[in-house]
Amino acid sequence: MSALHLLDTLSLTSGDITSILDDARLFLTATGLRTSVPPTLQGRTVTLAFFESSTRTRLSFEAAAKRLGAVTLLFTPTGSSVEKGETLGETFATIEAMGVDAIVLRHGVNGIHHEMSQNTSMSIINAGEGSRAHPTQALLDASTLLERLPIRARMAPLDGYRIVIVGDIRHSRVARSNVDVFLKLGAEVALCAPPTLAPDDDTMKGLQYFDCIEDACKWAHVVNLLRIQRERITADIVPGIDEYRERYAMTTERAQRYPDIVITHPGPVSLGVETDARVLTMSQSLVHRQVTHGVAVRMAILQRLLNPPTP
Amino acid sequence: MSALHLLDTLSLTSGDITSILDDARLFLTATGLRTSVPPTLQGRTVTLAFFESSTRTRLSFEAAAKRLGAVTLLFTPTGSSVEKGETLGETFATIEAMGVDAIVLRHGVNGIHHEMSQNTSMSIINAGEGSRAHPTQALLDASTLLERLPIRARMAPLDGYRIVIVGDIRHSRVARSNVDVFLKLGAEVALCAPPTLAPDDDTMKGLQYFDCIEDACKWAHVVNLLRIQRERITADIVPGIDEYRERYAMTTERAQRYPDIVITHPGPVSLGVETDARVLTMSQSLVHRQVTHGVAVRMAILQRLLNPPTP
Amino acid sequence: MSALHLLDTLSLTSGDITSILDDARLFLTATGLRTSVPPTLQGRTVTLAFFESSTRTRLSFEAAAKRLGAVTLLFTPTGSSVEKGETLGETFATIEAMGVDAIVLRHGVNGIHHEMSQNTSMSIINAGEGSRAHPTQALLDASTLLERLPIRARMAPLDGYRIVIVGDIRHSRVARSNVDVFLKLGAEVALCAPPTLAPDDDTMKGLQYFDCIEDACKWAHVVNLLRIQRERITADIVPGIDEYRERYAMTTERAQRYPDIVITHPGPVSLGVETDARVLTMSQSLVHRQVTHGVAVRMAILQRLLNPPTP
Repeated sequence: MSALHLLDTLSLTSGDITSILDDARLFLTATGLRTSVPPTLQGRTVTLAFFESSTRTRLSFEAAAKRLGAVTLLFTPTGSSVEKGETLGETFATIEAMGVDAIVLRHGVNGIHHEMSQNTSMSIINAGEGSRAHPTQALLDASTLLERLPIRARMAPLDGYRIVIVGDIRHSRVARSNVDVFLKLGAEVALCAPPTLAPDDDTMKGLQYFDCIEDACKWAHVVNLLRIQRERITADIVPGIDEYRERYAMTTERAQRYPDIVITHPGPVSLGVETDARVLTMSQSLVHRQVTHGVAVRMAILQRLLNPPTP
Repeated sequence: MSALHLLDTLSLTSGDITSILDDARLFLTATGLRTSVPPTLQGRTVTLAFFESSTRTRLSFEAAAKRLGAVTLLFTPTGSSVEKGETLGETFATIEAMGVDAIVLRHGVNGIHHEMSQNTSMSIINAGEGSRAHPTQALLDASTLLERLPIRARMAPLDGYRIVIVGDIRHSRVARSNVDVFLKLGAEVALCAPPTLAPDDDTMKGLQYFDCIEDACKWAHVVNLLRIQRERITADIVPGIDEYRERYAMTTERAQRYPDIVITHPGPVSLGVETDARVLTMSQSLVHRQVTHGVAVRMAILQRLLNPPTP
Repeated sequence: MSALHLLDTLSLTSGDITSILDDARLFLTATGLRTSVPPTLQGRTVTLAFFESSTRTRLSFEAAAKRLGAVTLLFTPTGSSVEKGETLGETFATIEAMGVDAIVLRHGVNGIHHEMSQNTSMSIINAGEGSRAHPTQALLDASTLLERLPIRARMAPLDGYRIVIVGDIRHSRVARSNVDVFLKLGAEVALCAPPTLAPDDDTMKGLQYFDCIEDACKWAHVVNLLRIQRERITADIVPGIDEYRERYAMTTERAQRYPDIVITHPGPVSLGVETDARVLTMSQSLVHRQVTHGVAVRMAILQRLLNPPTP
């Protein structure tokens, strides 16, 4: 990753990924984040542009940038020239002309990060792109798993591990990026979803598929849950919460029956749907530790893009 | 106050209070705030989470944290995972996992600050809690009064002073915290309110009660006004502005008739209701000086919680 | 400019203006902004108060203040005490009491910046005032032009240059401030607008007037476009986009026919109305460079007001 941007995971090799994760590890302690790190981004400016709202990811990037001494500017689409009909290209040209070094962009349109990257000297960091990609989520998930799972084989860091992604895979950018990163790090990856939420394109083809979480649990070392939006629980998609929980949820009871399974979730969790509050506090859940890795991984990415080591 | 949190004033001794106010005084000058203070909170992160909107208190805390070199993150409930149904406990766990050291919380639900404090290693600072408590307002009011009022007795800093709180006491968290702090510092405290806005619970029982401000002015050294929300001016509660002003307002005329009375107000003032623009500029009004003490007191609190002196 | 405030350009002499622009030049490089500048505003606090929304100008001022090491506080009128009926004077008194050194104010009411300046010790910086003034826009436009246009005469920096301002002049605060600054720097200035959007007051009287951009292009060295809000395109004001483009727009075709004309625009551009996306990327367009000068000029102004050189 000597590139200017982080547009997706597809362009990263497994060497790029482990190198980012090695950097991230330097920002972590056993229970949190290192409190004093060199301000390697002093004098750099990072703009956060979230065209889909997300307090959680925005705060994570903002914390990451500020911990490294960067100045952050929050671009708010509401009340901005975007609302006055400006194109995103013009908005980017304007932000770049203000001396901004990197833009953290969340946007609902697939492909817009690539499109914008053609014509800017700012670093574009993908913080969520339609249903296509969420590269920092995949990297932080991998970072958290590498910390927890002992290395089993020399081949690759996740070699010998089986990870199943469970939930609304069809609409999930997290699933698409995670599949890519987990495979590159050597894991076996499977999917588990109701047929109505299984992928309907070619982005994740050829993976093993489970129609119920019980079967998946018998196979997997890691269950990577996805959020089920309550809006999806309608007759056509998911008949009801009880039916969903029966076949696809990591309930408290199920987590207790499979105590060796490691559980991850990108958050926010729909409590009482795909899992329970109780599960989040079990030692087999990495959900809160993922958030900490999120800041560390984003620090590593910002630092690599904005202040690469001189060779 | 060796605690982790500032949840209310009830747990503070008079010694705790005067110790905080001593710290605050170091950040003040005769007319404003000291311009260069050591960045004792460098490397610390403070999140501001206001579930009830308040530009004034939010800015005050943000200025306080930044003056001490802390990084601030603004949590915005709108568009956040809270709107997506996340529990506040989960939100807190997430913010904590991002390496946040303290959370400044305003919330409408009585008791939620205590509840949240049971389960976090962040410092929780109460910036307003339902109708129950607003500890930093009480501390800054005390700080401003101590600066203005000469010490009369050895017993306690406000010994020998009579303070009357006037206005919508029933719904006021400021009244409840101020009564507690003023009493602890040795003042005599009375209440003055229309019967419909007098307290209807036991939190302030046993205090002297005035049914009109004229009687209160004959008794008091300090009149601590509260805001009357214009929505309360309806037939059932306060018959009309004229009637309210006649019996309960610190009008310009009344302030001039009692030139020795010191006037405080937590802001924002409903001008033309509980007092007048003219009054705010009189030398007997401490209203603007209170705002300055607000920043200093919040600096003192942040510093004590996040960077306590090593013994 | 030894004053406390930047309220408009009318009080600036041509010497003041060139002195500000000299300072701004120190923050610029050939393609962007200098990355490391001394933090001359460390310990200073700047509040951004935008009562009319503008992400662009707000970000520019925020970047400027932060690049010089100042702390910024964002005042948000929504949810603030202003919404609770507080007067702007009281809001200012409160912000000042928080130890704020300067307030960057955008407001729709003509004259309010002057009014507020009567009663505060904060520096007020006008970031847009009704239809009356937008001084930093005029200064950044001049700064950008001075960089591009070779000096022709000894008399004044823009001596020998002809600038035409084109578009919705009647409602434009940019036009009013730009006319003033361009004239003071020695330029000849003309206006070009549909009769319905020509000035209807005395603020810009005596200037040459063109009824179509073709005539203006034959005369001018610089075309300073203004934004046409699409709401204005109604039968009464501007009959239609095609008619407007024919007579008043700097279309791609027209820009190519007049390759020596320099084009400026305060942004955001109504693409396809007053000009085209293509034009913005031509070397005769200064539109993106103006944004960079915007940050530099605002840095210069903040520094002069908040940290004037000791004589």
